[in-house]
Amino acid sequence: MGRNYASNTDGDDMVGKVIACKAAVAYGPEQPLVMEEILVDPPQKMEVRIKILFTSICHTDLSAWQGENEAQRMYPRILGHEASGLVESVGEGVTDLEIGDHVVPIFNGECQDCAYCKSEKTNLCEKFRVNPFKGVMANDGKTRFTTKSDGKPIYHFLNTSTFSEYTVLDSACVVKIDKKAPLKKMSLLSCGVSTGLGAVWNTANVQAGATVAVFGLGAVGLAVVEGARTRGVSRIIGVDINPDKRFKGEAIGITDFINPKDMEKPVHQKIRELTNGGVHYSFECAGNLDVLREAFLSTHDGWGLTVVLGIHPTPRMLPLHPMELFDGRRIVGSVFGDFKGKSQLPHFANQCMNGEVKLDEFITHEMPFANINQALQLLIDGKSLRCLLHL
Amino acid sequence: MGRNYASNTDGDDMVGKVIACKAAVAYGPEQPLVMEEILVDPPQKMEVRIKILFTSICHTDLSAWQGENEAQRMYPRILGHEASGLVESVGEGVTDLEIGDHVVPIFNGECQDCAYCKSEKTNLCEKFRVNPFKGVMANDGKTRFTTKSDGKPIYHFLNTSTFSEYTVLDSACVVKIDKKAPLKKMSLLSCGVSTGLGAVWNTANVQAGATVAVFGLGAVGLAVVEGARTRGVSRIIGVDINPDKRFKGEAIGITDFINPKDMEKPVHQKIRELTNGGVHYSFECAGNLDVLREAFLSTHDGWGLTVVLGIHPTPRMLPLHPMELFDGRRIVGSVFGDFKGKSQLPHFANQCMNGEVKLDEFITHEMPFANINQALQLLIDGKSLRCLLHL
Repeated sequence: MGRNYASNTDGDDMVGKVIACKAAVAYGPEQPLVMEEILVDPPQKMEVRIKILFTSICHTDLSAWQGENEAQRMYPRILGHEASGLVESVGEGVTDLEIGDHVVPIFNGECQDCAYCKSEKTNLCEKFRVNPFKGVMANDGKTRFTTKSDGKPIYHFLNTSTFSEYTVLDSACVVKIDKKAPLKKMSLLSCGVSTGLGAVWNTANVQAGATVAVFGLGAVGLAVVEGARTRGVSRIIGVDINPDKRFKGEAIGITDFINPKDMEKPVHQKIRELTNGGVHYSFECAGNLDVLREAFLSTHDGWGLTVVLGIHPTPRMLPLHPMELFDGRRIVGSVFGDFKGKSQLPHFANQCMNGEVKLDEFITHEMPFANINQALQLLIDGKSLRCLLHL
Repeated sequence: MGRNYASNTDGDDMVGKVIACKAAVAYGPEQPLVMEEILVDPPQKMEVRIKILFTSICHTDLSAWQGENEAQRMYPRILGHEASGLVESVGEGVTDLEIGDHVVPIFNGECQDCAYCKSEKTNLCEKFRVNPFKGVMANDGKTRFTTKSDGKPIYHFLNTSTFSEYTVLDSACVVKIDKKAPLKKMSLLSCGVSTGLGAVWNTANVQAGATVAVFGLGAVGLAVVEGARTRGVSRIIGVDINPDKRFKGEAIGITDFINPKDMEKPVHQKIRELTNGGVHYSFECAGNLDVLREAFLSTHDGWGLTVVLGIHPTPRMLPLHPMELFDGRRIVGSVFGDFKGKSQLPHFANQCMNGEVKLDEFITHEMPFANINQALQLLIDGKSLRCLLHL
């Protein structure tokens, strides 16, 4: 191809050069990821190149890999958005990050300059919010990845693309954390754990003594449980159709477990009976509209709040009658736990480091990056929460 | 029938006796109300009998009269829930009201004793909240009205039934106001004006400088406009398909008027253009799902709030995709402007008395109670906001 590039093993000499490294590339819906050598361009203006040390797989990666939404399909593509690593090099104009910094990529960026970033009411950045249709960099509409074999562009994913030994991100999507923080666990802060805990802390602002129901006990739902535990709630009801989820849920903090398959009555009715009319807060982490309705109805009228975290790809309407809003139940969505990543995640990382938040239960498996398709299968089978891949 | 009763003109002697008086009785869907003499029992425990001096017609009366919701039909029935009057007598145990008090009935009562009334988060009383299926008194499941001709029970409506010279209410549904307050205008506080202003003040808590869009410029919508004006907002966009609504809207405070029929583009698009991405708050006062969707989309992503005030009788789902919640737009319902009637309406009445809130624009017509069917027609034809009936 005639391009000069540095190898992954060259060390400091790589700054400013194209890097050749391993990445897991998606070539089509449900096709096994192909572990191959790719080329990674140097970061451009306000961009950062990161050496990924750990990455894990989230359900959003899984949906994208399965190609659930046809309009979002683009190949070849590097998926992945939960990770941690080190800054390898920085582009022109980047002043808040330097080589060697310990960092966590965030799919929901924070430019810190737009009207949204300056508002206290939202964590949706004008330029770097979640956009699954985006596959290129904002600077020039091009990719920083190319196939080594034939120099074809490889698309980015969710501002991050962490299934690669090296990746390039806008600096708005890179959070610097304490160098003493254990990078392996910090990978969880990239998405699932922050999304769940933040929904409790920031979106709902759950207070001590409250009652909580969590629908769907995957990593995000369990992070909600952990968030509720840290707030000192009086009751945490976990709901999942997988009976095995009870044990992990109890290890983290649920006080009651409901398996809808064991119920003759609707789950919301059971929850209302258990909680004198309904919980203060319910969290929908399943991405299922029937579940969403149950979550909504399981809160107490007059003051109940349902927080929607699950992804609902099918274009259907909210299963709520407008008049039901008059019962005083509210419903809101929460993206990345309403955390402003660059401003607020470093403090959250410290809270995890000092033990306020416990992360150990979320890492159920670890394996080499090369085994990524095996990790994907574990998630599909509901056998893992997070499988940490070591790069 | 062998019952002893006092006549409307007997004065103080009526306490403790059945009263014979005029009422406008509904006998079937869309049948003209029948002005006839009825019998009104004395108030029972914790009940109050009121001499109505003024009443007006709200769209909820109209819907009930039209029998829109079959399950809510019951005849004969005395409709009406916006009014003002004097306490004629009080039942056993009532300590906060006495004969001669100036009062306003409220369809959304406040017992001041249940968990809801004791919560700051809701104005939905456990026992006396809005319930259009209820046609009898809570005490004994019976009516306090009977036909004079054949002694048949006449059903109550919305805890109030104000289309009668005398009516009996639970004391939880009677608000005592300052005796210096002009009772004629105070009638408006029973429903429409409180609902609209309260949605701005209490539900949305709109702040000075904000931008607001109001969908549907009937009495409730215009009360929203008045509420927004009192909060010092920077822009109030009124939306209505009736071009005449512009003038009344401007008299109260709208800065822009949009008639969707004059638009080629969707209203929300126009509003976003006018307001740099969308208004802070939108209020749906039309009771129409397409309008509701436009109202929702007309707010700014990240922080927009839509307050639903309109009644949506048809059982359809909210016209919102669950993923749209992730854009940071919120939607909530508001009943009676989130006012706790007995606790908070007296202060609101004072605010109206001292000119903070202007009520004159809302009274477009006045006529004798006997002309109630004519007043009904004015509302059907969209020619009146409130037609005050003098009893």
